[in-house]
Amino acid sequence: MDANSALDILWVLLAGILVFFMQAGFAMVEAGFTRAKNVGNIIMKNFMDFSIGSLMFWIIGYSIMYGGDGAFFGAFDFFYNDGTDLHNLFFQTVFAATAATIVSGAMAERTKFSTYLLFSLVITVVIYPISGHWVWGGGWLSELGFHDFAGSTVVHSVGGWTALAGAWTIGPRIGKYNGKTNAIPGHNMVLGALGVFILWLGWFGFNPGSQLAISGDNAYAVALIVITTNLAAAAGAIVTMFVTWFRYGKPDLSMTLNGALAGLVGITAGCDIVSPAGAVAIGAIAGLVVVFSIEFIDQKLRIDDPVGAISVHGVCGAVGTLLVGFFATDGGVFYGGGFSLLGVQAIGVVSIGAWAFGLGLVLFKVLKATIGLRVSEQEEREGLDIHEHGQSSYNY
Amino acid sequence: MDANSALDILWVLLAGILVFFMQAGFAMVEAGFTRAKNVGNIIMKNFMDFSIGSLMFWIIGYSIMYGGDGAFFGAFDFFYNDGTDLHNLFFQTVFAATAATIVSGAMAERTKFSTYLLFSLVITVVIYPISGHWVWGGGWLSELGFHDFAGSTVVHSVGGWTALAGAWTIGPRIGKYNGKTNAIPGHNMVLGALGVFILWLGWFGFNPGSQLAISGDNAYAVALIVITTNLAAAAGAIVTMFVTWFRYGKPDLSMTLNGALAGLVGITAGCDIVSPAGAVAIGAIAGLVVVFSIEFIDQKLRIDDPVGAISVHGVCGAVGTLLVGFFATDGGVFYGGGFSLLGVQAIGVVSIGAWAFGLGLVLFKVLKATIGLRVSEQEEREGLDIHEHGQSSYNY
Amino acid sequence: MDANSALDILWVLLAGILVFFMQAGFAMVEAGFTRAKNVGNIIMKNFMDFSIGSLMFWIIGYSIMYGGDGAFFGAFDFFYNDGTDLHNLFFQTVFAATAATIVSGAMAERTKFSTYLLFSLVITVVIYPISGHWVWGGGWLSELGFHDFAGSTVVHSVGGWTALAGAWTIGPRIGKYNGKTNAIPGHNMVLGALGVFILWLGWFGFNPGSQLAISGDNAYAVALIVITTNLAAAAGAIVTMFVTWFRYGKPDLSMTLNGALAGLVGITAGCDIVSPAGAVAIGAIAGLVVVFSIEFIDQKLRIDDPVGAISVHGVCGAVGTLLVGFFATDGGVFYGGGFSLLGVQAIGVVSIGAWAFGLGLVLFKVLKATIGLRVSEQEEREGLDIHEHGQSSYNY
Repeated sequence: MDANSALDILWVLLAGILVFFMQAGFAMVEAGFTRAKNVGNIIMKNFMDFSIGSLMFWIIGYSIMYGGDGAFFGAFDFFYNDGTDLHNLFFQTVFAATAATIVSGAMAERTKFSTYLLFSLVITVVIYPISGHWVWGGGWLSELGFHDFAGSTVVHSVGGWTALAGAWTIGPRIGKYNGKTNAIPGHNMVLGALGVFILWLGWFGFNPGSQLAISGDNAYAVALIVITTNLAAAAGAIVTMFVTWFRYGKPDLSMTLNGALAGLVGITAGCDIVSPAGAVAIGAIAGLVVVFSIEFIDQKLRIDDPVGAISVHGVCGAVGTLLVGFFATDGGVFYGGGFSLLGVQAIGVVSIGAWAFGLGLVLFKVLKATIGLRVSEQEEREGLDIHEHGQSSYNY
Repeated sequence: MDANSALDILWVLLAGILVFFMQAGFAMVEAGFTRAKNVGNIIMKNFMDFSIGSLMFWIIGYSIMYGGDGAFFGAFDFFYNDGTDLHNLFFQTVFAATAATIVSGAMAERTKFSTYLLFSLVITVVIYPISGHWVWGGGWLSELGFHDFAGSTVVHSVGGWTALAGAWTIGPRIGKYNGKTNAIPGHNMVLGALGVFILWLGWFGFNPGSQLAISGDNAYAVALIVITTNLAAAAGAIVTMFVTWFRYGKPDLSMTLNGALAGLVGITAGCDIVSPAGAVAIGAIAGLVVVFSIEFIDQKLRIDDPVGAISVHGVCGAVGTLLVGFFATDGGVFYGGGFSLLGVQAIGVVSIGAWAFGLGLVLFKVLKATIGLRVSEQEEREGLDIHEHGQSSYNY
Repeated sequence: MDANSALDILWVLLAGILVFFMQAGFAMVEAGFTRAKNVGNIIMKNFMDFSIGSLMFWIIGYSIMYGGDGAFFGAFDFFYNDGTDLHNLFFQTVFAATAATIVSGAMAERTKFSTYLLFSLVITVVIYPISGHWVWGGGWLSELGFHDFAGSTVVHSVGGWTALAGAWTIGPRIGKYNGKTNAIPGHNMVLGALGVFILWLGWFGFNPGSQLAISGDNAYAVALIVITTNLAAAAGAIVTMFVTWFRYGKPDLSMTLNGALAGLVGITAGCDIVSPAGAVAIGAIAGLVVVFSIEFIDQKLRIDDPVGAISVHGVCGAVGTLLVGFFATDGGVFYGGGFSLLGVQAIGVVSIGAWAFGLGLVLFKVLKATIGLRVSEQEEREGLDIHEHGQSSYNY
């Protein structure tokens, strides 16, 4: 193999390693944004998401997603073992695990652990790889020209819309809506902030790594993606901070942290084909949208999403994907490209949204009617750590 | 230098940087799994392990391990300074520091800080580099064909067996065994989980980096190792979770975290020469073994190991090294290779185990009889942070 | 592009990603070393430092620093967008954000958030890029032969001296000096330690990445820098530990953590042109200096710096830059090079120190006299988290 090929494999592996570490970021964000009595449970869910996801994606998920050029799914070849392609298996595995992890946050503090494991398996084996195949595996959306470079829709919205189905089906936490809407503050903002820093770090693998190569002119492409990713995150954080400052009178930390994530999710679809200035605009729009989306879901829809995952990943993923239609320097509305790309982007957002939300809804309804989705009221009040895992996570 | 050579150096340095970060993982795991009153002490020990180890391995350890082809040790050249080999010095330095760090967890919450520093120096200068030389420096075990690719035995078991000698010599913490065996829960499982995520991350340097190159077909080898490492960790976590679920009635978080580490330690010896399926099997076996080993050491041997380091690193390191004899695709029992590789693996496991445990025992007995191993009862009850370092680590 | 060029871009990007993560390290150190009631505020400041810095350095800062060869500043080209140089934009952006972040620690627990944002903008757009241009952008100090490879002075001292101006202008925290000097212990040493581990990790991007290439013989240069960086950090930690042990009777954790940082800051200027032994000496000297400097500033100058940032970054940055004049293997006093390099180093230290301290002082005096630097006494007593951000960061 020549130096360029080895360089590309090195880059894909390193990027995958960075994306792996996002699991720690999700765990810290979800732990910090929820209550101390449930923190071990949420970590256990994240830990198992990744562990089960790693096994299942190797066993069958990767084949469904990338195993062939069918319009709707790939192939059913079990136990992937192409010794010249294992760097790609790794990179796609850590992506798959991300989608599942998003759901755990929106359903936190009330979901049965055993049921959650089953669900986590289904998203990794069915929901994620099939719609993923449509876009990245040569399926019908890729044929249409749908552009979702690193997964605003394929990963984040799939996670976010499934999370919406889950949070809606399971209902709010006890005490969240009793006549009025009550805030249930997270127990540790330092953990939340650490998690966001780790996620931001991991995104430098998530987006630039999706170039899947760095040799030759790929190096310039990767550098552009690093810049657009970083600028969008920064713009998201700044805009969210000022929006909360104007709306609530004070700059809100937990919302600002989510603003950075909103910018990151938003730029993920178009990070490769927008300019730095376009990236700032996309990040800023995502940072604006996330505040109103979190308020709307929390106060109007009265769907209880403890960490804001539906807004950050579902809504901002959709928004970011649509904005590609405006900001793509080749084909975007603002660059004289007309509306055809925007139309295709909308088709992708709607069809994958319907798939993830619809299948998620069926799945959660079935689970609710059979083995049950929710812990008992006593367990919820006293904490999932004690009841589901037999020990408190904090012993000071 | 051509691009391939620079690429290889880049890879070794990056892998070493990842392994360095494992120090933070060990610190968080050991801090989280012990009590709040001793947390500064355990961090200080880890911090000094790495600092002293970095100096000593440069001063003399690297030369003992790699400085010549003798059967039992390398050479005594001080202050290593070969300007074309400093990437390897760095990579081996961060490995050496790992072995020492393992011991601090097993002896946590009762060991004198000053004594610990002395011990840490001896493991980095004597125990680790000499047995390391046998396997990786051209010594007698490498001549026999012993296969320990990244250090299940050379690093982890050496740490684990020395830890066994230490925990046995120093005796249990006050209150651990008074008639019955009492669990002394760690104070913060979030720290423990964060630590395990960081260790898992670092292992992507530890194992794949041990290829020491990534140019040419090394790239495929590295990618395989990334996959086997990840699958073994995932399998370890899953199996441990289910084992604790069946045995204790609930899936146990702290044990599951150790299950992932068990899988990682177990795959380290054979990560380069087993298939992905073999890696899953090795990880699963390690995840099973670790539960029973922790129970056995805690309840039957009544040796107090607060973080489970002896089982995770010592026992699973040995098990993983032996399993290479079964699962190696070239030479393993299950692949028609007969029992000769297995025999050599057993020789390595036993001889290095005897070396590390034996020398550790002598060392700890001598330290105990001279300057003393253990803090006073008052210090242990009130916390090592206050007494050894003059300040509490938490001030809320 | 050939493989060597792509390899160089990959390295610069990866190093930049590591430096980005230092933001998390600073946030954890500053959070851990201050009180729980102000922890969200300090994190918010760090988070905004980086976000605002990222935008501003792209908009104008990079051009001022690198946009031309003028003696005192570069150029005023807005919205940098050279598609073949974005890897360098990223690397320099994460550096610029570091300088601002240093200041937040020294002014922690009493500075108004809104004022801080303004200041953060000025350091990123004016203070840092102008003096940075003198050294790295082709300005007058680079013409003189001033050697500051990765920024002991350009980054750390600039942050440190500006921090000195800020901490002096704003005055001490309530209760710090009432007749005698009171220690106000940080609330969480585990966070502090985690932060230092992350910073040490990031420094492997900071220093070795400043080579800006890794192809060809750059690979050896980078490996040397990894080694000198690591040895200096280790030496700093060890020396500080022993100094505190002798001075205070016990090895002090928080001071030892600062000792490692002192070693890292100290080696940053000369990491490329000193030997491993020279690096140990520089780290050891920095580790010694930092203890006495923190004492002197705290007890003699009675300037309240909650995290020791002035000593770690300002003083040790200056010391490390001067020590290049002694330890440079080509041109240093101890290697027969005479005093000319040392003289140039002194000119750089003094002139940049005067620039950063002077401009910082003017800025803080103006801010104090206009919009105000300091929160109200009530806010300071009850916590900046509640008053500035409307929520406590911890809710157990």
